[in-house]
Parts: sequence; structure tokens; C-alpha cells
Amino acid sequence: MDSYQGSDKLALQQSIVHHVEYTLARTRFDFSKFHSYQALSHSVRDRLIEAFNDTNLHFHQMDAKRIYYLSLEFLIGRCLQNALVNLDLEEDYREALMDLGYKLEELYDEEVDPALGNGGLGRLAACFLDSLATLNYPSFGYGIRYTYGIFKQLIKDGYQVESPDFWLNHGNPWEIERLDVQYQIRFYGFVKKVWDHGVERSVWEGGETIMARAYDTPIPGYNTQNTIALRLWKSHPASEFDFSSFNTGDYFKALEQRQKAEYITSVLYPNDSTDAGKELRLKQQYLLVSASMQDIVRRFKRRKVLDWNAFPQKVAVQLNDTHPALAIVELLRILIDIEQLDNMSAWQIVTKSFNYTNHTVLPEALEKWGVPLIEKLLPRHLEIIYLINFLFLEKVQQKYPNNWGKLSALSIVEEEGTKKVRMANLSIVGSKFVNGVAKIHTELLKTTIFKEFFEMHPNKFQNKTNGVTPRRWVRCANPALAALYDRVLGSDKWVLDMEQLKQLESHVSDPQFVREFQMIKIENKERFVHWIRKTCQVDLNVDSLFDIQVKRIHEYKRQLMNILYVIYRYLIIKESTPEERKRIVPRSVCFGGKAAPGYVNAKRVIKLINSVADVINNDHQIGDLLKVVFMPNYNVSNAQIIIPAAELSQHISTAGTEASGTSNMKFIMNGCLILGTLDGANVEIDEAVGRENIFIFGTQVEDVDNMKEKMRNTDPHEYFPQELLKVFTEIDNGRFGHNEELKWIVDSIRYKNDNYLVGQDFKDYIKAQQQVDDLYRQPNEWAKKSIYNAIRSYKFSSDRTIYEYAEDIWQLKPIKVPEPAAQKHER
Amino acid sequence: MDSYQGSDKLALQQSIVHHVEYTLARTRFDFSKFHSYQALSHSVRDRLIEAFNDTNLHFHQMDAKRIYYLSLEFLIGRCLQNALVNLDLEEDYREALMDLGYKLEELYDEEVDPALGNGGLGRLAACFLDSLATLNYPSFGYGIRYTYGIFKQLIKDGYQVESPDFWLNHGNPWEIERLDVQYQIRFYGFVKKVWDHGVERSVWEGGETIMARAYDTPIPGYNTQNTIALRLWKSHPASEFDFSSFNTGDYFKALEQRQKAEYITSVLYPNDSTDAGKELRLKQQYLLVSASMQDIVRRFKRRKVLDWNAFPQKVAVQLNDTHPALAIVELLRILIDIEQLDNMSAWQIVTKSFNYTNHTVLPEALEKWGVPLIEKLLPRHLEIIYLINFLFLEKVQQKYPNNWGKLSALSIVEEEGTKKVRMANLSIVGSKFVNGVAKIHTELLKTTIFKEFFEMHPNKFQNKTNGVTPRRWVRCANPALAALYDRVLGSDKWVLDMEQLKQLESHVSDPQFVREFQMIKIENKERFVHWIRKTCQVDLNVDSLFDIQVKRIHEYKRQLMNILYVIYRYLIIKESTPEERKRIVPRSVCFGGKAAPGYVNAKRVIKLINSVADVINNDHQIGDLLKVVFMPNYNVSNAQIIIPAAELSQHISTAGTEASGTSNMKFIMNGCLILGTLDGANVEIDEAVGRENIFIFGTQVEDVDNMKEKMRNTDPHEYFPQELLKVFTEIDNGRFGHNEELKWIVDSIRYKNDNYLVGQDFKDYIKAQQQVDDLYRQPNEWAKKSIYNAIRSYKFSSDRTIYEYAEDIWQLKPIKVPEPAAQKHER
Repeated sequence: MDSYQGSDKLALQQSIVHHVEYTLARTRFDFSKFHSYQALSHSVRDRLIEAFNDTNLHFHQMDAKRIYYLSLEFLIGRCLQNALVNLDLEEDYREALMDLGYKLEELYDEEVDPALGNGGLGRLAACFLDSLATLNYPSFGYGIRYTYGIFKQLIKDGYQVESPDFWLNHGNPWEIERLDVQYQIRFYGFVKKVWDHGVERSVWEGGETIMARAYDTPIPGYNTQNTIALRLWKSHPASEFDFSSFNTGDYFKALEQRQKAEYITSVLYPNDSTDAGKELRLKQQYLLVSASMQDIVRRFKRRKVLDWNAFPQKVAVQLNDTHPALAIVELLRILIDIEQLDNMSAWQIVTKSFNYTNHTVLPEALEKWGVPLIEKLLPRHLEIIYLINFLFLEKVQQKYPNNWGKLSALSIVEEEGTKKVRMANLSIVGSKFVNGVAKIHTELLKTTIFKEFFEMHPNKFQNKTNGVTPRRWVRCANPALAALYDRVLGSDKWVLDMEQLKQLESHVSDPQFVREFQMIKIENKERFVHWIRKTCQVDLNVDSLFDIQVKRIHEYKRQLMNILYVIYRYLIIKESTPEERKRIVPRSVCFGGKAAPGYVNAKRVIKLINSVADVINNDHQIGDLLKVVFMPNYNVSNAQIIIPAAELSQHISTAGTEASGTSNMKFIMNGCLILGTLDGANVEIDEAVGRENIFIFGTQVEDVDNMKEKMRNTDPHEYFPQELLKVFTEIDNGRFGHNEELKWIVDSIRYKNDNYLVGQDFKDYIKAQQQVDDLYRQPNEWAKKSIYNAIRSYKFSSDRTIYEYAEDIWQLKPIKVPEPAAQKHER
Repeated sequence: MDSYQGSDKLALQQSIVHHVEYTLARTRFDFSKFHSYQALSHSVRDRLIEAFNDTNLHFHQMDAKRIYYLSLEFLIGRCLQNALVNLDLEEDYREALMDLGYKLEELYDEEVDPALGNGGLGRLAACFLDSLATLNYPSFGYGIRYTYGIFKQLIKDGYQVESPDFWLNHGNPWEIERLDVQYQIRFYGFVKKVWDHGVERSVWEGGETIMARAYDTPIPGYNTQNTIALRLWKSHPASEFDFSSFNTGDYFKALEQRQKAEYITSVLYPNDSTDAGKELRLKQQYLLVSASMQDIVRRFKRRKVLDWNAFPQKVAVQLNDTHPALAIVELLRILIDIEQLDNMSAWQIVTKSFNYTNHTVLPEALEKWGVPLIEKLLPRHLEIIYLINFLFLEKVQQKYPNNWGKLSALSIVEEEGTKKVRMANLSIVGSKFVNGVAKIHTELLKTTIFKEFFEMHPNKFQNKTNGVTPRRWVRCANPALAALYDRVLGSDKWVLDMEQLKQLESHVSDPQFVREFQMIKIENKERFVHWIRKTCQVDLNVDSLFDIQVKRIHEYKRQLMNILYVIYRYLIIKESTPEERKRIVPRSVCFGGKAAPGYVNAKRVIKLINSVADVINNDHQIGDLLKVVFMPNYNVSNAQIIIPAAELSQHISTAGTEASGTSNMKFIMNGCLILGTLDGANVEIDEAVGRENIFIFGTQVEDVDNMKEKMRNTDPHEYFPQELLKVFTEIDNGRFGHNEELKWIVDSIRYKNDNYLVGQDFKDYIKAQQQVDDLYRQPNEWAKKSIYNAIRSYKFSSDRTIYEYAEDIWQLKPIKVPEPAAQKHER
């Protein structure tokens, strides 16, 4: 790709040295590996900015419709390698650095992971941005620039310890601070009614005002000039002095109050077990949506003719879960109170512009906010919510006259107990389309939690199965596999069109191809072994089966079932004769994931895993037959090491609990077999790769309720299989430490409270694990099935997902920014 | 001057546009005046960095002795023009910008004043840095990067309102963030005693640790490659997790506690009326000294051979007032506890390295810290203070056996009431030299507050009369005057050698020269009139006498006497016949300065000034004969407009209260006459310019005590002159508003409590004011005397002051960094 600054070796070297001297203010005689990373990043950033400026200018000139993706999380991972790969500059920079005495890969490791997300929802948003840029869709990500972000997970004596992650302490060359892009955000205050030419208008006044300032992270597309913005908001105190809101004379109090503005965007997911924490979280949400909607409206108003009805033709907003649902209300407020549109016109515009993605089927996970809190913090918004609800319930009443059940289920306001605003209902009512994130999930939405809405507006509901970007998850994370594809397919076009992998079906019978594939896996396993030795001080046998479960620790995801099975397997090995042992498949079972700081049961599971690991890894009778590792602080950059090395990946949630599970897609793309239940995206993976290439077990979704019923009505000694009871006994007897907490974990499912059906599914799980072992004893068969997983994963590229969103939901067409070579003459 | 990046017009333009595109990430088609300022600043910053890197490298190679100037304040003012002038690039950039459609002077006004200081002490530190760089002395300034700094003063209904100054909201292109230069700072904890090879050692452990990170502002010398660092420290949370100091499981509390680290360097002079505020202030002081001493020791240890006895040959530390006095203790701690020197060797090193500048003669202004607070926050430091005190008092005991009066006066620890540590005593005991900042001030130190110390160590005491930099205060602030000097003297050498102004003595008889000088003053007055109209909405008559009093509002500085005189003058005018009025000299009396937020009397004086202004300025009978203005938010950049326009400047503190007063020096350098008492630097200005060129009045220092005695023993109606009693009556009667507070101001001096002798000096003050009027009626005479002030001000260049410090205190020689042209070949 051409670049305004040139990309020959000398130009790149000059650019790096320039940044050492001028940006870091270091002499060229005195800079370290970290400085070198920083200078390199600034050099790459220059090139990103060229494309970024071109993109913004071009979209503006083309008066493009844009999609705005609003999300409280963007788990973007490290930026350097991704930028180099997408800009096609990795090789050039590698060589340029070599002469300067630096290895590119070592500099990659100097980068800190941005701590801007928690789990799958945030990573999805990041994959989507990559696809939006790559597919040339005019688009923006809007989120929050958390100063501290998600905690860093440390393991101390086997327990999870949460350490604040001051990720910005290391600087962030990937963001552009926009001193001049900032919006006033108001909290509290009151609503004044004024008459203006015979119309009653609402004016929201008083309270506190703070500023939200924009920080842009350029997101480059692959092999395209298009580079879009992830715009993150940071709160800071307003410079202007508001006489009315301060008592004169108490400067220090005023100062303290205004300093607090800095706190608002400080922490991802503040502690919401306190009222202050809840309020802070709502402030975060409102800050995001208010700043973003003000920004979107400002951009819309820069068009030559101001025609509000054209708004939905130029703006599509996607709400990633309900966290940014107040955007619906905020846009209404802006249109009605500030732009002075009438209520109905404003409502038309809003409902044509918004769309909502749901991420859960668990009713208890649906977000609600107490009316008193909203009334206090956002009094005008509460009025508008009531207005929306009134208009909507009128329609419900028309369709289902006097059907109080319907009214109560559909109402945005929950009337029982303290009144609450149901953010999902608000999102559905205010959106044009609502989607689930996997087939089974969308079906469940239609038949369970959103049943009444689906009946009323069947066309509003769509499925958009998640996807992951092959750039980060294959091209960056697994360069050897990518090189194999490049060679066999004759180009790197598959990176943009994953369906090309279909062409590899015929190669599965080619022993040479299979061998190369196996070699790549071994190399990736070796890299992983090296990393585990460094981070966990455990030596893994590269010939063992690498069995991975990485995801947030949650009861429904059943890490507990996995570790109980590990114990079962350990007991089997202990009881085996030396002859029997020879047939046992050596396994390395690796767990990773964070538990929410307040989630006691999840944290105890981590302790159990570590206690079991401690006993097994130090049992000399076991040797390499079984190893257990808990990998601390699972994050995007760790995932890029873990996933390419995985051979078996467990996605074993109770059927009907996981919306999608998305990381299963990354695993199959890297040639890994899934051991899973028919839940979330596993269902579609099963369809895509073929049942012969996946290990499926467990209760199916339609049987779950019956099985729970059975569990509650059965004596635990009959309900739990003997294999599991034996494991319980060992834990009770202190085989893994005389620690009450370990017993409590068993207790959490032992007494008719096995709500996630560990007991029910355990025997089937053992059987599936035996199938895994049987297959692993046939390395060629294992490899072939792994290859089928990899090359049949094309459906799970986020490019496919984004294309579907663009076509079915956003009505958005790609706009390709001209390459600089063509543009240069114009300038 | 040569530059690595070239300074021809095209190179400068390319550099500006480059920063628009790459640093600001703006297209060249879409940038505003503010962006233009930012890009320009980054372009200038590049050139500063070249010189800065060269300087650091050269000093390192030369193994230079360096002077470290520690100060809690650096009131550096705007950086852009200063940098351009000192780099001799102002003209080049002006032309380069012209083509791009921008006026350089308009961009100057886009810069925000750094809010890093309060008054004279901080501005002195800034002038010293300019002289240190210009005179090629290897040196560093160390201070704190206050996020919010000093408050912004607003005037609302005549009252001062303090608004937080979020100066960094506008970005700061002048600082270099040093991500890798940071030191751990500990607070609280305990001291453990351990035995190590038969020696007892102290280990300070536990408590909280935070990090101090360096931000460097390059300070360019005039017409030299030498560019030194002002290194400011910002607190931030430590990235490392300290298991011992947190209870596991309470992540959010731990987070909150660590967020507080950000607060430490947040505010300049936290509210010290509360215990929490006091503690915060002590934390700031310790953070500054600990980070700075760690930095100094690290730099020292980079020498080839580690020889601690060489420390004083390579390091001189100057304490600007007692605020950084803990540096003495911190260096001892590092040498004894960490570097494991024995107590006596460490003490020798310390007392040869430190020096202390005192800034007050008021005993109540000497800083003290309660022993319990130090014990809690810095337990090891308290031990060391006791050790120092023990060693010192032993010597006192030797010299004055059993003289308890001496022991009690000299002791570092004050035993009365709650035990306190006297920071001035600590500073004197730990320093090689102690200096006052004006002749009279140093004499008072020797005879009053530090009498006992002077008797014990007469050679320790020196005078170093303050100075101001002619670069900012003439060359930048008064370019027309500078141009006149250049032309008449044939070069700009006077900027580096102010004694050359002596050559202008003969020109005072040249009417052409006098006329030019007058014209310059008029132009400056016009600029000031324009600025006053914009900021205060008051129209001043450019032909009136511009009579200025700008400085912090304090009772001892007697702004009250000035405004009482203004009322007196107003009453005179009101009583005058039209014929008499013709002879009255029109005056514009302008006040400026901030009152400490908790200083009620000072804030009331501001209210009185504004109330009087309100009546007089709106009295149509008065017209241009008298105008009163309170200029809000006096700061460095305002001073650069005010001072060149001033014709009379008042420095009227009660004799014996003002240490130096320094701003009087800026006024005379700009050809302004002083109306003052024989206090602070006025005494030396009087000597320098000659009594015929200054208006001196008031009680002299040796009579002050008698006069106070007389005041207390006299009936107020006899003590206060009739002229003043009449003014009191008018205020009492509500002539300036029926506001109790105005009466309270009068009450503050009315009842035998006129401690600053306003009543005593008032008649003499009136007489001096009449002399002012008489002279102003002879414009030529006035101009000549003004010129004498300007050209006889050379002694008050901070170059002279810094040269004296270097010779007499620091034993420091200049090291000139080679010009880049010569260096380029080496590289």
C-alpha cells in the first residue's frame, strides 16, 4: 500500500528515529526496548492517521450514511501488530527494525492490553470494528475510555486477587486526544416548562455539568485505505464556572466536587452493590450516549441542507446490549427540546434509526434501573420514557384491548415493588430491528423473554449469528497457518473472503498438507508451553492433548463440571495399573478467565481448580499424564497465544444459557475440536463442521426444564452418578486441601440446587471425554477433523455477520476510500 | 541559530502542516486558530527538543556539576513567545505563518497560562530558570505538576469568586511526559530495625506507595544552545500490586484508595485549615523532595566511579523557601538507609550540598509541622530529624553551655504545646548557606527571626537580592522598547548584559530619544486600554496617569491604603471648582491580585475596590479625572500587558514586611516610576535610580515598633488624620453601598488594630501622591525620570542574581553546549 510518508526501509527507519528524538525527546544513543516500541508505534500511527484523515474527508464529501456502534465495552486487544498486518507493513517494519537492532516480535510484547472490556460482548464489538473497516462500511465505534478498566487478575494461594489495571500508566500511542471535540453532559437538576409561541417546551437546567472529551483510536481495514474511528469518551471537569451551582466562598469544596468528574469514566463496571456504585454506572451510560448522540447530531447538521427526516437515511445506531439504551431517549430529548421537533416526528426519526442487539436469555440478566434514580439523575429523560411508554401502550391497548397481562409484560416501566425502567423493553420499543446473536438464542428470545414483543412485532426480530475477525484470530495469532493458506490458495484473498477456505476440502486427503497442519499446531503448542512456563511455572508436555476452557468464570458456563471431571480422571489414573496407564491419553487441562469481584461461587471455582492443580501437578505418580493449569489474567493478547495452541476447547454451558459463546469460533478457525453442549453458537458450529467433527453431549434445551424438575424431585444420592459422588467424597475428605471453601463449592450443587445440571450431564460428559481420548489416539484422524473445523469455519467470520447487519438492518453500502496514489494529485 | 530541522520559511511551514496532519490528526483543510497554535507549538517544541537533548548529553559527557532548584511553585507563564524569542525564531515563524493566513500574535493568545504558582516566590523561580539557561549553568528545576493549580479569580457583584483552573483541559504541548522516569514514594508505614554485619539499620516498610512521574518542560536560554529542564512531578497509582497492604476481596475499596494517588499533585496549596488538607500538603512536599532526591542520586550514580564524597562537587541543591526542606532529611535517609553510609559521612555530604533561600521576615509565616503528623506520615524522617537535632544541639551546648534560651530558640523541634518541627531551623541547620532576597530583608533576618543562628554561624548568611529576566519582561513584554535599545545600542547584547543600558545615560538629554520613549509608552498604554475594555468593560483615557498596584492581596501590602486614598482623591475632585479641576491630573488606578480563598479581610478589600470603582466610574461629574479598575485574575500573561503600560507602580507595604517585592523591578525595567516605602527591594531601587527618580514615603523600618506602640496608645480620633477619618465617614454612610462588609474593612484598622500603620503613613502618602501629580504635569520630566528607572535597572536582572548565587553559593561554572553546526559532524 502506498503511504504519504513512504514505506521503504530508510523512510521507516528515519520515521522511527525521528519519533525517538522528537516525540520521546530521547537521544538516539539512549533508548530502550520500551522506547523503541513507543517510537515504532508513533511511526505506525503516522501512517494510520494518513488513512484516517483520508477516510473522514472522503465520507464527509460523499455524504455517507454511517453506522454508529454504541458499546460500553471494546476489548480491542493490542494495536501494533494488527495495524501493521492490516496496513501490510509488517515485513517492511521487521526489516527496518532488524538494522536498528530490534526484533519486531519482542516489541509487540512491550504493548499493554487496553483494559476496556470484560468478556465476549466487548470482544465482539472489537471484531465488528475490524470488519466494518475492512468491508469499507462508513462507521464509528463509540465507547468509554476507562482510566482503569477491568481489573488485572492475580492468583495468590490459589485465590483470585483483583488488582487495578492502570493500563494508561504505560502511555497510549494509539489514541488521538481531541481537545476540541467535547460535549457538555448534565446530571441532576430540574425540568422547567416554558411557553414558546403557544408550544410548551421543556428546559432541563441546574444540577451539575461535566465535559466528555473524545479520544479517537484509528481502526484500519485490511488491505484498504478505509480506517474508521473508535471514539472513546473521557469525563473531565468543565472549564466554565457555573456561578449558580456553587456557594461562593467554599472554593475547596467546589474543587473537590469538580474533581469527581474525573471519576465518572474511571472504572469499568463500578461496584453496583451500593447505591453510589449504581448511580456511577448510570452516569457512565448516560455520558456515553449523550456525548455520542450530540456528536452524531453535530455531524448530521454539517450537511448542506438541514432535513431532519433524512436522519435515518444518514444515521443507523446499533445498541450493543441495553447498556446504551438511553441513547434512544437522549436523541428524543435533543430533537424535541433542542431542535424543537414535535414529539411524533422525533419519535418517527428515532425508531427508524436505532437497532438493538440482545446478548442474554437469562431473564435475571436483563438490565433495569430504579425510577427514583433516573428521576434524580435524569429528570427530563424520565419524562420522555413515560411519554414513549404512553404512546406504545396505547398501541398495545389497540391491539389487545384490556389485556392487562400483555400490558404488564410489554410496559417499559415495571410497576411491582420500586418502579423500574426495563431497558430491554425500552430498546425494543425504540428500535427498528432487534437481534439475537446465534440461531438458538434468537429462537429463545422469540419464545421466552421477548415472546409478547415477538407476537406483536414479528418482523422486528432477526438473527445475526456472531463472528470473529480472521485478521486478528488467524492472520495475526497464527501466522504459520495463514502462510500455509496463502501458499496453497495462491494468495491472501481468503483473509477477506473466508469462503475460499472451501477450496481446501480436497487437501484433507493430502498427507503432506495434513503433516504441515500438524507441524503448525506443534509449533503453536511449543510457543504456548514456553509462555505457560514463564507465566505459571508449570512444564507442559507438548505431546499431551491441550484441552482448554477460557471464558469468564460463571456457574452457567460450568467450569466446575470440567474440574470435577479432571478429578475423576485423576482418580482413574491413580487406580490404573502401569499397563493401563500406557493407554491413557496425556492431557494438559488449562483454564483461564476472570470472576466478577463479588461473585463468590465463581471465585471458589478458581480456588478449586488451583487446589486440584497443586495436588495433581505435584503427584510424581502422575507425571505427564495429567496437568492442570489456571492461566491468570486471561485477555486478548493471551488468547492470541492460547487459541492457536488448543486442540480441544470446551464450551459446555447448560443448554439455553449461553447466547453465542463466540470464542468457540476462534478455536475452530485455528483447527481445534470443540467439546460442547448444543448451546449458543455450538449449534451452528455443529451444523457447519459436521457432527463427526465435534464432540456434542448433554441435555438439550427442550429437556432442560424437565431435568431441573427431576433434579429437584430426586434424592441427591440417586440423582448424582456414582462417578461424581466419588469425586465429592474426595473433596470432602480433603484430598485437595482441608479447606471449607472447597466443600462449599460441592454444596453449591449438592442439595437439589444443581440448577445448571452438572449432575445430570456428568455421565454423558465422561462418555464424550472418552470419545475425545479415542480420537486423540489416532493423530491423523484428529488432525483431519481439526482441519475440517478450520476450513469450514468461514461462516463465523465477522465479515459475514457485518455484511448481514449492513444488508438486513442498517441498509448500508460500502464506500471505498480512494488509494492515496490516486488522491495525491488532487491535493 | 542553526537547527537540525532547518528554519527557512518552507521548513517551518512544512513542520507546522506536518503537526496539523500527524500530531493533531487534522486534515490541512480543516483546522482552526487553536489547532494552528497547537501545531505551531509542536513545531517549536521540536526545535526545543533538539537543543534539550544536546544539552543533556553534553552535561552528561562533561560530568557537570549541576544546581537543582527545588520549589513548590514555578510561575513560568506562557511558553510560545518566550521560546521563539530565546531561539531567535520569532521573525521566521511570523513570516511562515503569514503565508498560512495566521498572525503570530493572535496565536500567542491561544495559549493558556500554566497555573503552577501563586505569587512572587513562584515567578522568581521561573525568572531564575531563564537566567540559568541563558548563562549556560548546568541546572534543573524541580517542582510539581498541579493538575488544577492556582484558582482562577472571577469577580461577581464585586466579590472575588474562586473558580478551579483546569488549565490542562487545553492540552500542554510544552511538556514531555517521561513514562519511564518515575519513582516510588512511600507514606505512613513503620520503621523496622535490622542488624546487618553488626550495624543497626533502619528499614521503612508498609504503608502506601504511589508513583511520581516526571514531566519535563524544556527551558531555552537566550541566544545559546543550552536548554535546561523544569522537571515537574505528577502522582499516579503504582502499577505493581502490593498484596500486604490490601485485604483480598475488597477490590473496589482498594481501587478507590489507589485512585486517591491522583489527588496528591492535584491542587496548589490545598486547604490547610483541615487536618486532611494539612496532610495532603505535607504529602505534596514529600513527593516533590523524594522524587527529586531519588532522581538526583540516580543521576549521580551514573558517574563512572561511585564516590559519595564527590557528591557536593557535583550537586548543589537550592531550597526555595522551606517548603522543600524535607529534601535534607530525604537525602540523609537515602544515604544512610539505602546507600548504607554512616550517619556522620551522610551528614557531611548533605550539609555541603544544600542551601536555603528565605522569603519572609514575619515570624508567623515560618512553616511548622506538627510532630504527630510527621510521625504518622513519615516515621523514618522524624527519627532522622531527631538525630539531626541531637547532633546540632550538642554543638550549641558546646558553644553556649546550659544556655536554655539559646537551645530553645535554635532547636529544630519546638517543644511548647503540640510538638512541632520548625522547617526554617531544619533548613538552616542542614544548609551550607542561607540567604535573604533583598539587602534590608537579609539584615532583618540576621537581627530578628534568625538572630541566634546568625550569631552562631555568621558566615552562613548571605544576601542575594532578587532579579527578573529581561527576556520575558522587556524583550517579550515590551518589544518596542527592546527595538529602541537594539537600535541605539547597535545590537541585542543588552539582553544578555543589562549593564550596557548604562550607555544610554547620555541619551536622556536627547529630546528625540525621550520622544521615542514616550511614544512607546503610549503604544503600550493603548494596548492596555484595549485589553481593559475587553476584560473589564471600562474605558480608560490614554492620557491619564496609569497608576498600578498588582500583587497578591494582603493586609501588609496595603492595597487598603491605596483605595482609601482613591476615595480621598474622589472627594477632593467632587469638592473642586471647575477651575480647580483643570489642574487635577487624571488618573486611572488599576488594581490586580488574588486573595487567598480563606483570607476574609483581603477578599473584603477587593469588594471595597470594586464598590468604589462602581461609584466613581459611573459618576458623570468625574469623567476621565479618575477611574478605578480591578483587573480580575492577575497572572503572568496579564502582567506582560499591564507592566509595560504602567507609569506609576505602587509598592507600599509597611516597612519591614515585604521580603523583596520583585515586581517593582519589572516596572522600573519598563520605565515606570515607583511610589513606595523603604521596604524590600525598594531600598535598593532607591539607591540604583536615585532618590530624585522615585517617590518614597512612610515610616521607616527602625521606627515601626514605636509607631505601633503609639498607635495602640493613642485615641483613634487623634491617631487617624482628618483626611482619613473623612473617608471612613463616607464609607460608613454608605456612599459606596450600604454593605456591612465595607464597614468591617474600616473596622479592621479603626480600633487600635492598625498593625500595618495605614493611619500613621496616610498623610505622608498623600504628600507623595501630590509629588506624583506635580511631576506628571511635566511630561518631559516624567519621561526622563522614567528612562532613568529603565536604564538604571540593570542590577535587577536575574542574570546578576544567578551569577552571584553561582559564584558565592553554588561554586558553579557555566558550560556552554556546542552549537549544532559544530556538532553535526560528530554525530
